[in-house]
Amino acid sequence: MIRRISITQLAYDSVEITHDDVPIEYSLTLYLNGEEWVTLLCSPYSLEFLVCGFMKSEGLIKGREDMEELVIDSDRGQAWIRMKNVSQIAGRRTYTSGFARGITSCNVMGAVELKPCSAELRVHFEDLTGMMDAFNVASPAFKATGGVHSCAICSSKEMLLFQEDIGRNNAIDKLIGEALIMGVPTEDKVLLTSCRISSEILMKAAHAGFPMIVSRAAPTDMAVREAEKLNITLLGFVRGTRGNVYAGKNRIITGS
Amino acid sequence: MIRRISITQLAYDSVEITHDDVPIEYSLTLYLNGEEWVTLLCSPYSLEFLVCGFMKSEGLIKGREDMEELVIDSDRGQAWIRMKNVSQIAGRRTYTSGFARGITSCNVMGAVELKPCSAELRVHFEDLTGMMDAFNVASPAFKATGGVHSCAICSSKEMLLFQEDIGRNNAIDKLIGEALIMGVPTEDKVLLTSCRISSEILMKAAHAGFPMIVSRAAPTDMAVREAEKLNITLLGFVRGTRGNVYAGKNRIITGS
Repeated sequence: MIRRISITQLAYDSVEITHDDVPIEYSLTLYLNGEEWVTLLCSPYSLEFLVCGFMKSEGLIKGREDMEELVIDSDRGQAWIRMKNVSQIAGRRTYTSGFARGITSCNVMGAVELKPCSAELRVHFEDLTGMMDAFNVASPAFKATGGVHSCAICSSKEMLLFQEDIGRNNAIDKLIGEALIMGVPTEDKVLLTSCRISSEILMKAAHAGFPMIVSRAAPTDMAVREAEKLNITLLGFVRGTRGNVYAGKNRIITGS
Repeated sequence: MIRRISITQLAYDSVEITHDDVPIEYSLTLYLNGEEWVTLLCSPYSLEFLVCGFMKSEGLIKGREDMEELVIDSDRGQAWIRMKNVSQIAGRRTYTSGFARGITSCNVMGAVELKPCSAELRVHFEDLTGMMDAFNVASPAFKATGGVHSCAICSSKEMLLFQEDIGRNNAIDKLIGEALIMGVPTEDKVLLTSCRISSEILMKAAHAGFPMIVSRAAPTDMAVREAEKLNITLLGFVRGTRGNVYAGKNRIITGS
């Protein structure tokens, strides 16, 4: 997912021709029942995870079986999805930009309705900070380029799955797709992420069933409100031995 | 653009109920000739700049006058655009998610074609680093929340316009819209940004006419290739007294 290119490195007293590793950006166009639908710019790997996770996190499928067919042509940057019951989706195409910047598409076109999360998961704050420390050094692409987002699925004690991508939405979609395909339940897991939590990211996590989202960065007010409404535990600025709980504090165990 | 909310601040040896400032997230739905079209999640200000800049940076208009009417209802989160010659846009609605994650929409539906940039702007590297230092401390919302992106238009010597938003695309669109409405030429200016440079960001800057983009963060390989093709100068990791030139080095003056 990295390309080495020639650059000119400048400082006040030097000009050096050298090289730098930059993240590769790849274009994947999704076709729904033969019709061009949406294009994702992403890192060029885990494409099946990406497509499945995208469909799940946007509330369009419950499981892999809801898609009758998924064929990925990675040379051409195409993913061909065949599924029944797409009138909801096709009829709402004007909303597709909601996938990336819009109001969460699930409210508009989703096949899956969200209810407040009833998961009984409880996690020690010290375990979360320990996992965040491990998570922060887990991305070789970030270390090389400084240009990718990462996210991980954790039990209450350890990191289980890890994904990264140039786009924060894609990283989360890949992770959700991997869990879906590998049969890893998410209802009793923690989603760790490097990215800021907007309402869109929060809704993706909600559609995937996570009761807890932990970020080293900031949330928006809308994400906090949605988390409260859906009874999802939301932590931000988890760094070192500190962190902020924005919603769902009852799932966090503090003290010894 | 900030909301103060109650949070629980955790450390290993303390639990404190306190407050935190989080960035406000606002939803603006664009209607094109009466039909719902695309929804942007953004910071709730400079909405006219946002809409005009979005239209310009996506290659859909050349100037403000290409829109016959623009009415913004900020209470309802609606922007009503009336323009002729939208068959190109309306016919390509499946692409609208390209605005945020897709291949740059300009290739598909744009009214404006891009040519290699011929601007003769030349800038001293020391002036760029000086402006980046000023830029880095210019955002009160970032200081308060750590959750916004900022960008600025600079001459070869000083920062002229500054915008910020929870979304990096929005921040750049607002800036481009402000320049459009205020009549500030961009063909002889530098675009400074806090965000990573994907191909999408690069194309937005290209549509706005900037010959130079300077970021404190990383570019992707596709952004570098597009910059080379369009003869746009692209610098990344400009921090302190150092920086990397990824394309268009001829516009940078080094040494004393």
